[in-house]
Amino acid sequence: MPNPTAAILVIGDEVLSGRTREANAYHLAGELTRVGIDLSEIRVVPDDHAVIVDALNALRAAQDHVFTSGGIGPTHDDITADAVAAAFGVGIDVRDDARELLETAMAARGQTVTQEQLRMARIPDGATLITNGISGAPGFSIGNVHVMAGVPSIFVAMLAVVLPTLEAGTPRLAREVRFEVGESRIASPLRELAEEAPQLSIGSYPFRDGDVRGTNVVVRGTDPAMVQAAVARLEALRATEC
Amino acid sequence: MPNPTAAILVIGDEVLSGRTREANAYHLAGELTRVGIDLSEIRVVPDDHAVIVDALNALRAAQDHVFTSGGIGPTHDDITADAVAAAFGVGIDVRDDARELLETAMAARGQTVTQEQLRMARIPDGATLITNGISGAPGFSIGNVHVMAGVPSIFVAMLAVVLPTLEAGTPRLAREVRFEVGESRIASPLRELAEEAPQLSIGSYPFRDGDVRGTNVVVRGTDPAMVQAAVARLEALRATEC
Repeated sequence: MPNPTAAILVIGDEVLSGRTREANAYHLAGELTRVGIDLSEIRVVPDDHAVIVDALNALRAAQDHVFTSGGIGPTHDDITADAVAAAFGVGIDVRDDARELLETAMAARGQTVTQEQLRMARIPDGATLITNGISGAPGFSIGNVHVMAGVPSIFVAMLAVVLPTLEAGTPRLAREVRFEVGESRIASPLRELAEEAPQLSIGSYPFRDGDVRGTNVVVRGTDPAMVQAAVARLEALRATEC
Repeated sequence: MPNPTAAILVIGDEVLSGRTREANAYHLAGELTRVGIDLSEIRVVPDDHAVIVDALNALRAAQDHVFTSGGIGPTHDDITADAVAAAFGVGIDVRDDARELLETAMAARGQTVTQEQLRMARIPDGATLITNGISGAPGFSIGNVHVMAGVPSIFVAMLAVVLPTLEAGTPRLAREVRFEVGESRIASPLRELAEEAPQLSIGSYPFRDGDVRGTNVVVRGTDPAMVQAAVARLEALRATEC
């Protein structure tokens, strides 16, 4: 059975303007690979209601899971929760369990929840909360969409809560073989290997290390024996090439 | 007149698997902001012909410019040029001017061009080459699509060649005001400011710096006087809040 697929939709003017270097997609990619869910698309869009709704609807139809990052804070530019509700065609309002999480977190700091903070307790109808140990404000899952914070430490905490609840696939092993020759020198045998083993993905990545022009070849696949056989062939090739 | 818009399509299994931290979109975002072209979408897709063709066609219809990154090397997993030709419905073959660039670069290293390297001289019909001072292998522009290397140093070099040829917009200024209070404390006046000045984008980004929970507010706009007026209002707000 093929692995489940996923996409991440990052909502953030600050990424598109070059102010912020996006970090959550990279973390998600590594975690999904570990549990055997194939990340099939990363998409970054601006803080624009219609654009978010369209992207969400395209991605949730195409992939088994969609993660979102960003836009769930208390300010006017945090419009993700409303866009998710619109994409699913459901209502959205402050929900008691979400408000209690906020109240508990604020009470621990000796404060009460303000009207503006209450915005973070607006949850689309039918969603399940995603708690986190860092901030009181929850994310939520609705259908196959998991709505999470943009702040990296909170994204990491929320993903750690969500991931164990998803059906895992077969982890994809990756093994790397380093060649100290340029890509084109080994392109022909790599192509043969890729054609003979279509279940594997054979990636070829040139690098420069001081004066050395080399190539890292990455073999990826779910069958350990098949990955190992390909690595053995690459190591034999390297012995003749280097 | 609104600024021209752009998207970047990154082609790369290595990004989606979490092996590589994508760097070119971040560089592009900063450079486009500098010249007044609005980056509207970042999309990362796998090394899959049909997926690349579909994404390219969606993005080139929606945006004024599309940049691609990755998949133009000499190996079997480099399928971007063929996908671009398919998206435009044009032929693709080795082209003399591209071959000469390769030959010159290889001659400088005392080598000749191999059959596999010749793959990098395959250029869709009607495209214009994008040279670079680092490798002999060119990128190319066709219609509103600019096809560039995934290796960051070469991507940077190619962008430096392409960018001056594009019609620039009005550079978007960004000014940041740091508040040492949480987002929700200033959410209300921020919303008022955003509503009064719809030409500006007012972004609010929480941070934690040791024990300080603060908020960076970023004002972005093309009219310097308007940006300055908003910053003055934020500084006055800060004087009452902090």
